[in-house]
Amino acid sequence: MAEDNKVGTYQFVAEPFHVDFTERLTMGVLGNHLLNCAGFHAAERGFGIATLNENHYTWVLSRLAIELEDMPRAYQKFSIQTWVENVYRLFTDRNFAILNEEGNPVGYARSVWAMISMESRKPIDLLTLHGGAITDYICDKECPIARPGRIKVDESEPVCEYQARYSDIDINGHVNSIKYIEHILDLFPMEMFREKSVRRFEMAYVAESYYGDLLTFYRERKAENEYDIEVKKNNAEVVVRSKVIFN
Amino acid sequence: MAEDNKVGTYQFVAEPFHVDFTERLTMGVLGNHLLNCAGFHAAERGFGIATLNENHYTWVLSRLAIELEDMPRAYQKFSIQTWVENVYRLFTDRNFAILNEEGNPVGYARSVWAMISMESRKPIDLLTLHGGAITDYICDKECPIARPGRIKVDESEPVCEYQARYSDIDINGHVNSIKYIEHILDLFPMEMFREKSVRRFEMAYVAESYYGDLLTFYRERKAENEYDIEVKKNNAEVVVRSKVIFN
Repeated sequence: MAEDNKVGTYQFVAEPFHVDFTERLTMGVLGNHLLNCAGFHAAERGFGIATLNENHYTWVLSRLAIELEDMPRAYQKFSIQTWVENVYRLFTDRNFAILNEEGNPVGYARSVWAMISMESRKPIDLLTLHGGAITDYICDKECPIARPGRIKVDESEPVCEYQARYSDIDINGHVNSIKYIEHILDLFPMEMFREKSVRRFEMAYVAESYYGDLLTFYRERKAENEYDIEVKKNNAEVVVRSKVIFN
Repeated sequence: MAEDNKVGTYQFVAEPFHVDFTERLTMGVLGNHLLNCAGFHAAERGFGIATLNENHYTWVLSRLAIELEDMPRAYQKFSIQTWVENVYRLFTDRNFAILNEEGNPVGYARSVWAMISMESRKPIDLLTLHGGAITDYICDKECPIARPGRIKVDESEPVCEYQARYSDIDINGHVNSIKYIEHILDLFPMEMFREKSVRRFEMAYVAESYYGDLLTFYRERKAENEYDIEVKKNNAEVVVRSKVIFN
């Protein structure tokens, strides 16, 4: 297969209610677009949720890392490219490029996905699925940002508590992957976003949380502009970890 | 002008992260689509924000009422039609129809807008703007739902308090019109959405609120499935009022 056919490209416009007060697209909306592109690209190649659901399988997002030099501004067109970098037995690496109106990359993202059975909640061997056909889509397009790294929070004093509400809950009955991004960025004061922008944002999805769960947010400053965040549910299990690097 | 040319029609798909746990599009996302359609329709006719901003004018949403028999489900296509019903000196009425995949209406919406000067924050006379050209777009397409009505809350005990955060704030530095919709529906327990759906939803935008404002939510049950809500900022001024009718 030609390398070009392995890359999906999808067009967007930064909607006026999808930008923040600096007129830049929000990280949550960008994350939503990335996940949609992953869905489109997989569906077009026979690995989408709809096809998988016939087998009672679904994709589960494990890691997401986004690194940006710039963000689309309100009303600007932009596009997102996505491709599969690697397929392992239990995980696949899917990468993204975010291109501005002129088609120049302004950022990249890396994601790691597993496929699980919706009945057993156990992972599925990707290399045997459809006779390993998913490996046909592996593409060596460059993604010049670091892989998702280690996130470690020792801080024991929470910075915020939040009880998961109706609008946090997605089609699967879990707190929406994107809502965690919003809640984590909401830990920072407005001045941070006025003076700086988010250069790198990482999420590690560890466990699921549900309606009514009490989410507790712990934040630890790792360097001048670098913060690690850990979210626990009901004062016990870790739900997600995140790293935010401003510039 | 032919009546057909006065109606704008825009296509959408219910994205997987834009539906709630019942697989139906959320009211917030529908509201966002309605506002975008208003923007597209106005821009295509020379009354969009971009054109207005040259004159330092902007549209301000005053009222929104949405009434639905059904909501698009995840991955379903749907479309939104919008048209201008009336233009008065200080307000214009813009209506919407929400059509399912087959092109049949599943709901309607009514909105009321003013135009203000961004410098004085004072309203602009719509009938003299562009020599009154906006009245050329008035269209008598039917919108078979009641106009936004009176919303009155006597309850003095708040049901919820919320401090406006980074992700609530829009391009204008105000709490986003759509975020109020999410926060208001979050006042209801999950069971309401499991057993019922929102048949009619009304918003009255009274004043602006800002980052850090303490929003206090008052809710009063008006009938079996009908609730009026009032949101105040910093225990003083009313910011928005809302009516939610479940079926």
